[in-house]
Amino acid sequence: MELLKNRILKDGEIIENRILKVDSFLNHQLDVNLFNEIGKEFKRRFEDQEVTKILTIETSGIAIACIAAQYFNVPVVFAKKHAGGNMDKDVYESRVYSFTKKSEYKIKVSEKYIKAEDKILIIDDFLASGSAISGLIDIVEKANAVISGVGIVIEKSFQGGRELILNKGIKLESLAVISKFDQNTVIFK
Amino acid sequence: MELLKNRILKDGEIIENRILKVDSFLNHQLDVNLFNEIGKEFKRRFEDQEVTKILTIETSGIAIACIAAQYFNVPVVFAKKHAGGNMDKDVYESRVYSFTKKSEYKIKVSEKYIKAEDKILIIDDFLASGSAISGLIDIVEKANAVISGVGIVIEKSFQGGRELILNKGIKLESLAVISKFDQNTVIFK
Repeated sequence: MELLKNRILKDGEIIENRILKVDSFLNHQLDVNLFNEIGKEFKRRFEDQEVTKILTIETSGIAIACIAAQYFNVPVVFAKKHAGGNMDKDVYESRVYSFTKKSEYKIKVSEKYIKAEDKILIIDDFLASGSAISGLIDIVEKANAVISGVGIVIEKSFQGGRELILNKGIKLESLAVISKFDQNTVIFK
Repeated sequence: MELLKNRILKDGEIIENRILKVDSFLNHQLDVNLFNEIGKEFKRRFEDQEVTKILTIETSGIAIACIAAQYFNVPVVFAKKHAGGNMDKDVYESRVYSFTKKSEYKIKVSEKYIKAEDKILIIDDFLASGSAISGLIDIVEKANAVISGVGIVIEKSFQGGRELILNKGIKLESLAVISKFDQNTVIFK
């Protein structure tokens, strides 16, 4: 998606030749007009799939998933990382390893909001090692629902996440795929 | 807003005659069609105000703010509760007391994303004691920006938040105002 790639080149910051920071439009300040173009592009790429719900994970996936959901006309469910005391007791739970924090955390989705008859499109902002997406896939599988696909805004293709999803036979669509960082510049595939 | 009030009566759960849980459409599963009606209503109620940015707080405010932002044609900025190691160092910071968790936490917004010339509409899902909203107001004041108003989806009017905002001379619009809980039923103002 050229619009997105150009925006990353223009406004993305690269830290230590390995971290892409997109706080100015995707992760802290949110460019809702861009999100609408992203939503349309997801709809185009998953046009052939039946989708009854979009599943994402807090925090950064939520805004993208909600804007995209308007083009699919379905509700969004987000997996909770920081579930409060009032969360339902009957939940699908999975463990996610955070490479940034070097620790594991739990994600939870109430059993009420994913049913066996659901066709779930998983959407998130980033794909790298794939641990968060694997957690979401695990939750959909525990609910015996169908995974219609995985839609990613920005993929770092050299950290294993892609293979992990494709090896499960799941359709993956990433709107901007980074093949490497070179002298603090993004090189797209 | 009748559509919202009817939805609360239909799908809200009341716990111990004091907590309203709206996980099925607002806080865990997100009804994006309803959010669009909420967004239009915020636009109608703040029609007379200049708005250059919408400010909210993670997690539940983000989706509502983003859908609403489409009607104002402005970006969203969300205050971070769980700022990662890559967050900007120059931030506006405030402390928020959580009555649920009986502890204080910090919220942060990068100085890059609120400027003195901004006219900020603050949007959040709930207003009760007003501590989260006060933290957001504090951040806008630290940035020397103007507050165009505060838009709330569901207000519990008996916990002091309303007075706190109005005493600062800030316009407050809440789409559903709960005056009390009675025998596990919501009574609207």
